[in-house]
Amino acid sequence: MHRPIKSKVYLVGAGPGNPELLTLKAVRLLQAAEVVLYDRLIGEGILELVSPEAELIFVGKASGNHALPQPEINSLLIEKANENKMVVRLKGGDPFIFGRGGEEVLACREAGIPFEIVPGITAATAVGAYSGIPLTHRGVSPLVTFITGHASKSGTLPDIQWELLAKSNHTLVFYMGLSTLPLIAKELIFYGTSPDTPVAVVQEGSLTRQRTVTGILDNIVEKVEQQQLKSPALIIIGEVVKLREYMQWFEEQSYSSFDDAIALSTAFSPESSKYS
Amino acid sequence: MHRPIKSKVYLVGAGPGNPELLTLKAVRLLQAAEVVLYDRLIGEGILELVSPEAELIFVGKASGNHALPQPEINSLLIEKANENKMVVRLKGGDPFIFGRGGEEVLACREAGIPFEIVPGITAATAVGAYSGIPLTHRGVSPLVTFITGHASKSGTLPDIQWELLAKSNHTLVFYMGLSTLPLIAKELIFYGTSPDTPVAVVQEGSLTRQRTVTGILDNIVEKVEQQQLKSPALIIIGEVVKLREYMQWFEEQSYSSFDDAIALSTAFSPESSKYS
Repeated sequence: MHRPIKSKVYLVGAGPGNPELLTLKAVRLLQAAEVVLYDRLIGEGILELVSPEAELIFVGKASGNHALPQPEINSLLIEKANENKMVVRLKGGDPFIFGRGGEEVLACREAGIPFEIVPGITAATAVGAYSGIPLTHRGVSPLVTFITGHASKSGTLPDIQWELLAKSNHTLVFYMGLSTLPLIAKELIFYGTSPDTPVAVVQEGSLTRQRTVTGILDNIVEKVEQQQLKSPALIIIGEVVKLREYMQWFEEQSYSSFDDAIALSTAFSPESSKYS
Repeated sequence: MHRPIKSKVYLVGAGPGNPELLTLKAVRLLQAAEVVLYDRLIGEGILELVSPEAELIFVGKASGNHALPQPEINSLLIEKANENKMVVRLKGGDPFIFGRGGEEVLACREAGIPFEIVPGITAATAVGAYSGIPLTHRGVSPLVTFITGHASKSGTLPDIQWELLAKSNHTLVFYMGLSTLPLIAKELIFYGTSPDTPVAVVQEGSLTRQRTVTGILDNIVEKVEQQQLKSPALIIIGEVVKLREYMQWFEEQSYSSFDDAIALSTAFSPESSKYS
């Protein structure tokens, strides 16, 4: 069988769910795709870009349930590409940061299917921008580490060198770690991170439903429970979290009060007085 | 003076320089901006999106020279916003990862200027996708750390806990580290990283001029010199680099040979024979 170049698989990062944070390349590919395989956490506004003639296949399930097993997603990708179709595999965030994109690329490679990989706005940068927390900041943190907070079947976080992380003086970002937050806080404190270290937990970053809870390592579990945050959420740990006080702009309450503050300060400033 | 909402500063991540990797929000803001302050490494194709009526101000200089000092950039931002204009501060990559965006936000905040922060594709994810190196991969690396390789005036890399990095078993990504690569390799090996650890150095990731050199920690300096790589370049260190062999797709040579390989394999496969 001759395989025309059109049967290609595009692994595309969809970013954090806010359609405005899609790349131009992602939009172009979504509009041209004949088949789109998409995860949960891909927002409505994003799927609307797909042509009505295209086949839309959902390969994820709601949070808490298991997604379609990875081998089945891989098989489906190959099956659709072998139908001589342009296939977009749309993944939340960036395909190569906790996206298991590498496994899908290897499946394509083994099947001899050409592929492209399109980066997306990864959750950490989206959340940093929209919660007003710089992941690095001169004099505060010159490094940042991204870690998956997704637990194994046994409920643990294997392969994480807690002692090294606890001794580091830089920003830590845990993805998908809301359910393992108690474990993360416990391990870090056990290995020597100060219980006073600032922490922010951000639910649905960059979306209108974004909510942020801040605290310290010692009380963040309690605060998150009180505020009833839900997944998906990202955890930022480190001194940079303190900067949010000066850099937040997005969340409705703070945004309004910030605008109000400016309106008030200008309304009552000497220059704005019609009598000045 | 009453300040209408239009005098706002948008800190916008421009991504790695490939215009297709701009976000929709970045494009919209660039088209609407009245003033754009931009860094070096912002590609031509990106600046073409700016309205011809807008004021374009270059605040960076060619590599090796110093950029406009940060306090002057901050002052210019405030000055332009105080002219009652919509100002876009266009920054390479993402504003909150090694972009000193936080310092510009603080300047706006102090001056009472409203701001928004728009994330961009950070170099590490762009380079990962376009060089075929997943930054995390199940069973290989569940973490990734981003580090600035930009030297201080004394030529050193202060604030980096080399011993912790050297003992970590996960992917390390150094930004802007081409000139400090010898130092990075030396420190990591000194503190215990295996000299056989795979390394990739990627010049101008995601652009047509992208070039990648791979090696191991022990020989990467020599190889990069032989191949005469130039800044800007990103350094990826860790076992994930080995996956590039199976996942590269973008660079012309490998791409052509990959397509050729498929053409050849299908041309000579039994199914493609007209006699089968």
